[in-house]
Parts: sequence; structure tokens; C-alpha cells
Amino acid sequence: MRISDLDTPAIVVDLDRVEANIERLQCYLDEHGIANRPHIKTHKVPALARRQVVAGAVGISCQKVSEAAVMADAGFDDIFLPYNIVGASKLGQLVCLARRVRLKVTADSAYTVRGYADAAARADLELPILVEFDSGGHRCGVQTPGEAAELARLIAASPALRFGGLMTFPHSAEGDAFVRATKGLLKSEGITVDCVSYGGTPTMWTAHERTEVTEYRAGTYVFGDRAVFASGAMTLDQIALHVIATVVSSPTRDRGILDAGSKTFSSDLMGLEGNGLILEYPEARFYGMSEEHGHVDFGACPRKPEIGERVTVIPNHVCPVVNLFDEITGVRDGQVAQTYHVAARGRVR
Amino acid sequence: MRISDLDTPAIVVDLDRVEANIERLQCYLDEHGIANRPHIKTHKVPALARRQVVAGAVGISCQKVSEAAVMADAGFDDIFLPYNIVGASKLGQLVCLARRVRLKVTADSAYTVRGYADAAARADLELPILVEFDSGGHRCGVQTPGEAAELARLIAASPALRFGGLMTFPHSAEGDAFVRATKGLLKSEGITVDCVSYGGTPTMWTAHERTEVTEYRAGTYVFGDRAVFASGAMTLDQIALHVIATVVSSPTRDRGILDAGSKTFSSDLMGLEGNGLILEYPEARFYGMSEEHGHVDFGACPRKPEIGERVTVIPNHVCPVVNLFDEITGVRDGQVAQTYHVAARGRVR
Repeated sequence: MRISDLDTPAIVVDLDRVEANIERLQCYLDEHGIANRPHIKTHKVPALARRQVVAGAVGISCQKVSEAAVMADAGFDDIFLPYNIVGASKLGQLVCLARRVRLKVTADSAYTVRGYADAAARADLELPILVEFDSGGHRCGVQTPGEAAELARLIAASPALRFGGLMTFPHSAEGDAFVRATKGLLKSEGITVDCVSYGGTPTMWTAHERTEVTEYRAGTYVFGDRAVFASGAMTLDQIALHVIATVVSSPTRDRGILDAGSKTFSSDLMGLEGNGLILEYPEARFYGMSEEHGHVDFGACPRKPEIGERVTVIPNHVCPVVNLFDEITGVRDGQVAQTYHVAARGRVR
Repeated sequence: MRISDLDTPAIVVDLDRVEANIERLQCYLDEHGIANRPHIKTHKVPALARRQVVAGAVGISCQKVSEAAVMADAGFDDIFLPYNIVGASKLGQLVCLARRVRLKVTADSAYTVRGYADAAARADLELPILVEFDSGGHRCGVQTPGEAAELARLIAASPALRFGGLMTFPHSAEGDAFVRATKGLLKSEGITVDCVSYGGTPTMWTAHERTEVTEYRAGTYVFGDRAVFASGAMTLDQIALHVIATVVSSPTRDRGILDAGSKTFSSDLMGLEGNGLILEYPEARFYGMSEEHGHVDFGACPRKPEIGERVTVIPNHVCPVVNLFDEITGVRDGQVAQTYHVAARGRVR
């Protein structure tokens, strides 16, 4: 079966490229003595996470407890949750998981730490907790080294918890300074910062410039997307995932409508113009999307597509695209090699 | 079980409001003699489509063949596909479907018509085809009454096809003029335009101002969302679907981070500022989203939420939210009444 036999829209993954992408980052992190802990949110497929671990990853990162449970069921035994797990239901699932696998988790507040402490104590566990700090992502994370040190002390003082280090996303020289300042505050108390976990695909090749990093989390690097290409971190021929779509309408000379819209591509723009790059028509421009239609202006293209023609699109942001599909088709040399069930799709909790 | 017992993020649907929404549009369309053919892409749940049909809908609309197949399996026997179905695989599925249910489908090109004609002839079927015209949506649809008439003639001349009328989205006085002009071109040839299908929730209450409409397709009206509320077509207390989320981090006085991001809300903005309306904190403003986090500025709120607190959010666009979940929780008076499997989720083909 060839790619051209697949019904559209379909997502196809070039397995040679996937393997090269996995190998490339692993070699780079090995060379610089940084542990690799890839984020599986990009592919959500146990078999692809297995390739990452076989290549040398120390474990995996998952964003939600339910996502981690899928991976634990698939045999992964070293999982980091870079997320504040809050509420009785999820804390119950968390301790179940911590009984099965080596698990570390994240906190940026005393509230979250207390939840972990109670749940771990009741389950008679010792749970490692990393403190998240805000390095400019303006999302989660304590704001000052003083707050980070205070949380580290609270964790270290909880019998059922262990202070596991610091984590942030994205990474920067300011992040390194934050880590050093926190270490300085904790040194006299004998609290060590054993793990410093940074992340991100666009900035992965500058991880070695960070003086404090010990572990790196990248997700998108396994497939790549238009945003990563735009960042310069991957070349076009390293991008492993493509959406195959069909032109189903061409109401004007310049307008072509694809059978793939936001239900395929998501609406994530990632700060870019248009919703994707069409490889056969690089001058084409997505001027809009509805759920089931991609609206493309082919005006700048020397040749216009015919109705029924198939096109190959690099999406702006690959992670939500995978989350919209039940299956990924793995290909080698244009031939369908394997179908992967997206086992951790839709795990929102 | 109460809403407060559900793990977050969850989507809950107030069934009293759903029933009132279904009833309200049905009464309005009945009053004006317009057939109701709701689009099931909003809920994707056979049991909710059943309520629409029981209330008086003549049939349903589905956007993709695979979505229609789910509904046919659930017993629906009158389905309209307002979509150009292109390619051998989908045409094969289409004729299978046409053998089981009353099916009508859409074309805006001779290419699409020829595909239908060949597939229907081989299957010994008579397939009704509506011609789509562009009424300002700048998506699919022929551009002129002349083109519409030409396609109608091609359909009428195909032994296995029947010209089923005209369809468009959105509707307007210009659309009516387009229909009249097309009718004028076809009259002398004895080709009648028996069905004129318009659609859209924001403009549903002006359907009766259209002189040509015979059938109406609305989807979002069943649940409502922030965009429909902003359009004025529904009030806040008619909106039936809410996302329940938990504040998992509050790194600064004003910043609250929810456990629901674009993997819950999608990234559809629908031209609005921010990604949703938080009922408990109407002054709050989504300043961003990542996949698993909603980033909210509570600065303008007199009271700020605590970590662990749950909030109720009206999403900007409800259809992609439902498509991101495997289940919808139906509630009455704050009590969980029923769990619905989103049977047609992820049917992209």
C-alpha cells in the first residue's frame, strides 16, 4: 500500500526521519552529558516512545496523569509529570501510578505540595517533587528564587516527599541564574538541587549553553512542524509528519478548498501566517479554515491544483494534529509500513 | 453524582437547556414552514440527534461520509451531506450509505458531479445532488447563477443523478437573489429547484426573512457558545454546554492557570478576544493557552480564585470542544443524569 492509496485527510509519518530525529537529539544530549527525557505529548504512541528509550532516553515526560497511565500500561517505568496535579481524584490516580513506576512530579505552590504530601503519606510512598519556576513563559512556576527555596524546604520537610530539583520551560541564561540563586539559598541547609529539567524543541540545540541543566524535555523534535522549521531548529527534510489532503473544490481560478480544516490541523497558528505549508505549492497561502475545509489561495502559484489532486501539508503545530486522529500511518520510501494507534489521544485529565 | 464530583476538565451539558434549544428552533421553523435539518457536527451524539428528529426535524446534516455512517448505524435514515465528496474510496462509502438511507449530497463542480454520476450508475442508484453556491463564505460554491444552472443541467442529464436543489452557508438577501436568478435560468428547461437549503446558528432567527429557503441547517444552536452569545442569537442562560476546569496554579496575585488549554477548548477564537467566558469571574481574561493550560488574568476581578477552585467556562466555539472529548456528561439540576459517548468524534474522512 502506498501513501497515494490512503484516504484523506491522513497523517503520515516517515519512520526513517523519525528515527534520525530521535538519534540526532540523543547524540547531542549524550555529547553534552544531559539526560534525555522526551515529552510523549507530541506522538502519544507507546511504540514511538519505546524507540526514544531504546535510543538512550532515561525516561519519558507526560503532561497529564491519564496520559502517564497509558504509558505505564505500555511498560514505561520512569515518568516525569511536569504538571501541578491537583484534586482528590487525580492524586488518587497519581499514587496508584507511583506504586507501579518511578514517578516524579511538579509543584509551584504550597497547596500542590500539601496535596502530594497527604496522598503520598496515606499511600506510604516517597514521591520526588520538582519545583517549577517561571523563566518567562508566563504560565505556571514560582516567580523568585526565594519562593523556590521556600517550596523546596516545605517538600524536604514532608516525610512522604523528596525534593527532586527544579524545572522550567523555556530555558534561558536568566533561568540558569534563577537556579544558581536558588541553590545558593538552599546550600547552607543541606538541600541539594539534583535535577534541573529544561525543555523545548525550538531551543534544543542551545541546551548545552545552559550551565545548570541536567535533564532535557523535548517533544516536537520527533516529528517537527512548520513552527519548529521557522525557528531554525529543524530543516524541511527532517520534518517527519505530513498531512495528506485532497482538493475538493476550486470555485475560482485561484481558490482551492482542501478536505482538511481545523478538525485536522487544529487552529494553532503559533504566530505564523496561514495554517500550514503545502509542499507541492509553497507559494500557496491558507487564508482561512473551517472545521472540515482548509481555504487556500493558490494565486501566487505558477500552476494551480486540479480538483481531486492530493497535497502534502506541514502543519504549524504538530501536537494537536496528532491529538485529533485515532491513527498515524508510518511510511518508508512512500510505502505504508505500519499503523499506530494514538493510544494517549484525548487524555485531558 | 453532582457536577462537583466530576474530574476536570469535563464538558457538561444541561439537558433541560438542550431540550429547550431544540424545541425553540423547531417551533420557529415550523411556524415559518421551513424544514429543519440540524447539523449533528456540534454534538456528534446519536441520542441528541434523536431528540432533534423526535422534535420534528425532517432529517439530519453530516459533514463527512464517515460521520454520516455513524449516524446511519444509529438508525437515522434521512441524511444530507453539504460537502463535495471526492475520490474513489469516499464515493464507494457514499453509495454504500445511499443503499441504506435517504441520502442527498452536494456538488460545486463538474468534476464532483461526474464522480457521483459514475458511482451511482455503477451501484444502480438515483442520487439527489444539491448545487452549492458561494453566498459570501468564500469557501466552496459556484460563483454565478450561470454556473449553478450549468451544474444543475449536468446533474439533470445524468441518468443516475437527480438535481436536488441549491444550498449555501451563510444566508443573505443576496443569496435569495442568486437562487431566483438560477431558477429563472432553469425554468424554460423544466428543471425545478425543489429544495433551497440555508444554514447557520448566528443567523437562524432571520431565516424567515429569506424568500427562497425551504430547509434550514443549524448545528451550534443545540448547545450554544460564546460566539453565538456574542452574535445575539442566544442568551447566556440558554447556553447548555460548559467546560468545568480547575485552577491548578496561581504564580502571581492576578494570574490563574487552568487545567484546560487548547486540548480542551481548541484554539478557535471566532474573532473574539480571549478563549472563553468564565461564569464565576466574568471580568477574567484568557491571555493565552497552551495544550494543557489555560492562562487567565484575574486582575480585573474583585475576588481572585484559590488554587484547587473549579470554574465554569463557556468556550468560544463549541463544536471543536466536543470533538476533543470522548464523552459528554448530561446533567439536570446540577446532578449527573447521563454520559454520552461522542460517537462521531474524530470522523475526519
